[in-house]
Amino acid sequence: MKREERLVTQITPKSEDFSRWYVDVIRRAELADYAPMKGMMVIRPYGYAIWENIQAHLDRRIKATGHVNAYFPLFIPESFLRKEMDHLKGFAPEVAWVTHGGQEELEERLAVRPTSEAIIGAMYAKWIQSWRDLPVLINQWANVVRWEKVTRPFLRTTEFLWQEGHTAHETEEEAREETLKILRLYQEFIETELAIPVIAGKKTSKEKFAGALETYSVEALMSDGRALQMGTSHHLGQHFSRVFNIRFEDRNQNLQYVWQTSWGVSTRLIGAVIMSHGDDSGLKLPPRIAPIQVIIVPISIGNWKEKVLPVALDLEKKLAAAGIRVKLDAREEYTPGWKFAEYELRGVPLRVEVGPRDIKENQVILVRRDNGEKLATSQDNLVERIIDCLEAIQKNLFTLALNFQKENTHDVDSYEDFKKIIEERRGFIRAWWCGEVSCEEAIKEETSATIRVIPLEKIREGEGCCLYCKKKATDYVYFARAY
Amino acid sequence: MKREERLVTQITPKSEDFSRWYVDVIRRAELADYAPMKGMMVIRPYGYAIWENIQAHLDRRIKATGHVNAYFPLFIPESFLRKEMDHLKGFAPEVAWVTHGGQEELEERLAVRPTSEAIIGAMYAKWIQSWRDLPVLINQWANVVRWEKVTRPFLRTTEFLWQEGHTAHETEEEAREETLKILRLYQEFIETELAIPVIAGKKTSKEKFAGALETYSVEALMSDGRALQMGTSHHLGQHFSRVFNIRFEDRNQNLQYVWQTSWGVSTRLIGAVIMSHGDDSGLKLPPRIAPIQVIIVPISIGNWKEKVLPVALDLEKKLAAAGIRVKLDAREEYTPGWKFAEYELRGVPLRVEVGPRDIKENQVILVRRDNGEKLATSQDNLVERIIDCLEAIQKNLFTLALNFQKENTHDVDSYEDFKKIIEERRGFIRAWWCGEVSCEEAIKEETSATIRVIPLEKIREGEGCCLYCKKKATDYVYFARAY
Repeated sequence: MKREERLVTQITPKSEDFSRWYVDVIRRAELADYAPMKGMMVIRPYGYAIWENIQAHLDRRIKATGHVNAYFPLFIPESFLRKEMDHLKGFAPEVAWVTHGGQEELEERLAVRPTSEAIIGAMYAKWIQSWRDLPVLINQWANVVRWEKVTRPFLRTTEFLWQEGHTAHETEEEAREETLKILRLYQEFIETELAIPVIAGKKTSKEKFAGALETYSVEALMSDGRALQMGTSHHLGQHFSRVFNIRFEDRNQNLQYVWQTSWGVSTRLIGAVIMSHGDDSGLKLPPRIAPIQVIIVPISIGNWKEKVLPVALDLEKKLAAAGIRVKLDAREEYTPGWKFAEYELRGVPLRVEVGPRDIKENQVILVRRDNGEKLATSQDNLVERIIDCLEAIQKNLFTLALNFQKENTHDVDSYEDFKKIIEERRGFIRAWWCGEVSCEEAIKEETSATIRVIPLEKIREGEGCCLYCKKKATDYVYFARAY
Repeated sequence: MKREERLVTQITPKSEDFSRWYVDVIRRAELADYAPMKGMMVIRPYGYAIWENIQAHLDRRIKATGHVNAYFPLFIPESFLRKEMDHLKGFAPEVAWVTHGGQEELEERLAVRPTSEAIIGAMYAKWIQSWRDLPVLINQWANVVRWEKVTRPFLRTTEFLWQEGHTAHETEEEAREETLKILRLYQEFIETELAIPVIAGKKTSKEKFAGALETYSVEALMSDGRALQMGTSHHLGQHFSRVFNIRFEDRNQNLQYVWQTSWGVSTRLIGAVIMSHGDDSGLKLPPRIAPIQVIIVPISIGNWKEKVLPVALDLEKKLAAAGIRVKLDAREEYTPGWKFAEYELRGVPLRVEVGPRDIKENQVILVRRDNGEKLATSQDNLVERIIDCLEAIQKNLFTLALNFQKENTHDVDSYEDFKKIIEERRGFIRAWWCGEVSCEEAIKEETSATIRVIPLEKIREGEGCCLYCKKKATDYVYFARAY
């Protein structure tokens, strides 16, 4: 038992070294493991179960807004990528190339998709003829590969899982509406299901997607004060429709190029959950995406098998029947104390302890992972109480994250203050910017902070001067050091 | 309208040319389309929705038997494949090789997974230490690539989607039990959800998986009389655990190699559904996997918008609330007749026609896709009647397929009869076989028929002589020409 007790606590404290803490949590909670190939990871069952829950919640929303799923090929001929030069340049350094099939060398090498605009564009050119065929609203759940130099589990890996939506529309206005509709869908989904507040806004030209007219993103603040891009939604304009010749006969019998969008979120969201909510004891999972929402630990003393176990089994059955993801851990080779630590590490939102004394008093002890609160709770209407408690935990995790975000968002007017805060406290910094890429680049060079978004919501009234060049500002924007 | 009416009927009759009929159905029903790269396909939304339903039904069964999902890397280093030589030889001709990442040539080339035994073996060696870690019961939903020379949509494509289960056990017996448990799970799933009867059995050594000790499969008879392998379950023995060094400390503190299984079904199942149930009018989808189970077509004559449409909308709402996948097609630019043909082509199991006259008589017309039956049905308790009707359709499709299979299964004792039947009638042929690969190969060479399985169920009592060499037979087996 000794050895295992120690294992549970074998996580680098978050405050000591955030990066090591992050990796320790992933490995100890068995979310993922390093594959033998550089930069690649294996998503282990516990991590994959989180992804399945994320998929279910998001897929429902994607379908409810009229989109359908499909599947496009993994390989994209090099000539297809070459058609849109910005797109090629943006992705060329990151592409894994297939050059041989079986024993033969291929005539044209194939890219393992880094994203699917090019192959989907080629298919849409076949499928779309008339305005009656529009809009096309297709999403794909798939793996993609980007040959990254520096990798970190979930946040940046050579291969990752994602969904990529690709839509085609009659008008520019409709495409922009779709872009923003999805951005808001991502925001609502991330805030509701992952309990992570995000800032929705537009990327600067420098930061936009290779081949897009405009890129929008939702950005969150991790608990180390660095920003993470949680999802992007691109208004592609007619860039791809022109090179792939995706044309339709409009309502006046004129040939027009379609207007397109694309948008995606990935397994990176799991990294965001870890970094937003976790603490020194490990993960804290929002109930809505937790593979195990409730862990029942019987206190194995005295005649617990006769008195306690039947109550625990009964509760497990009732919770499962109510649709709660519940697990009873009645293993005898582990102590209750070991189990407490283990499921805390794994971020299980709610623990139910039940021992001989609780049975006598017709109660159980509920222990919340979000705040450590212990509640002696009557066994009457226990299922309802537990459901309420899970909802309270979900809400509280969001509130905690929102408070953290607010406390770590600073409005500054001077570049001196900016540098000081970015160095000492990190977080989001909001400031006036002139719209010039030169100032954006200089600030990045000098502080490692980038413009995360030009927010959709107007934050500050009036006019101001650019933080860097002091010329007239166009936007009040979010800066941060980012992952 | 003329042009579209013609389009609906633009399918080669099944009896005229089965292969062309198959491809016509796939393209006209928009299940899939050819990608611009040889041998690759795009699964279009209607086809992908069938796959999603298949996944949901199968995933539920996989989880109910204690398995969990995970995700392993797409790429496998060549040296890993080389560790198990049978495995390498089996797959080497079919592997797509990645040789470059970004601008750099890789030191070791990477296989795009043709199957994942090798990479999963390497991970299991890390994860498994003790008998307490066993069994490991992991499944993966993924894409795989096999560089096929001759391809056919859904049946054999360069890339396909599948699930692959990979388990590790303490004992050989447990591994064999798992292999057979999954085989039976596949059988029950395919018969229940896809309405396709299958024969469960063992593959001959010649036909077994590269690296397996034993391979089992479920085989179905398509409506052209050719067999299709629907799914396989492999008892891997210790082949992979020995080369990947997957060892555990057993209950007596001895180091042992684990016993493994692997098993999979793929998007090929969609091809099986098309070929088992379809007819000259197109697809016939079993209700349990149909993306649209009920199509409501209002008869757009007279004052239908005032009288008929509200009833149709109300029925749509009620069916959706009851969990039925329903669609109301009230488009005015298409005639009811065009819609009838279109949804027949797409295999929608049940059509509800409702016109002004039906409203007067408080009825609707139900038209079954499986047998063409038209039933004037009261609007009272209509939802229940429709649910019953869908169940009847599901059962009838299975019965029809089972009758076809029985009628096309022939027991023969002479090789002359065998050749005659295989040439004139195809189907399954059951005969005695001596167990020698030489006879198996000679029969294949001379008739193109292969041994599909040595059935699990004993079919014929007594003893017999090998169909080919006349020596004493060991098994009574299923032969067929196969896809």
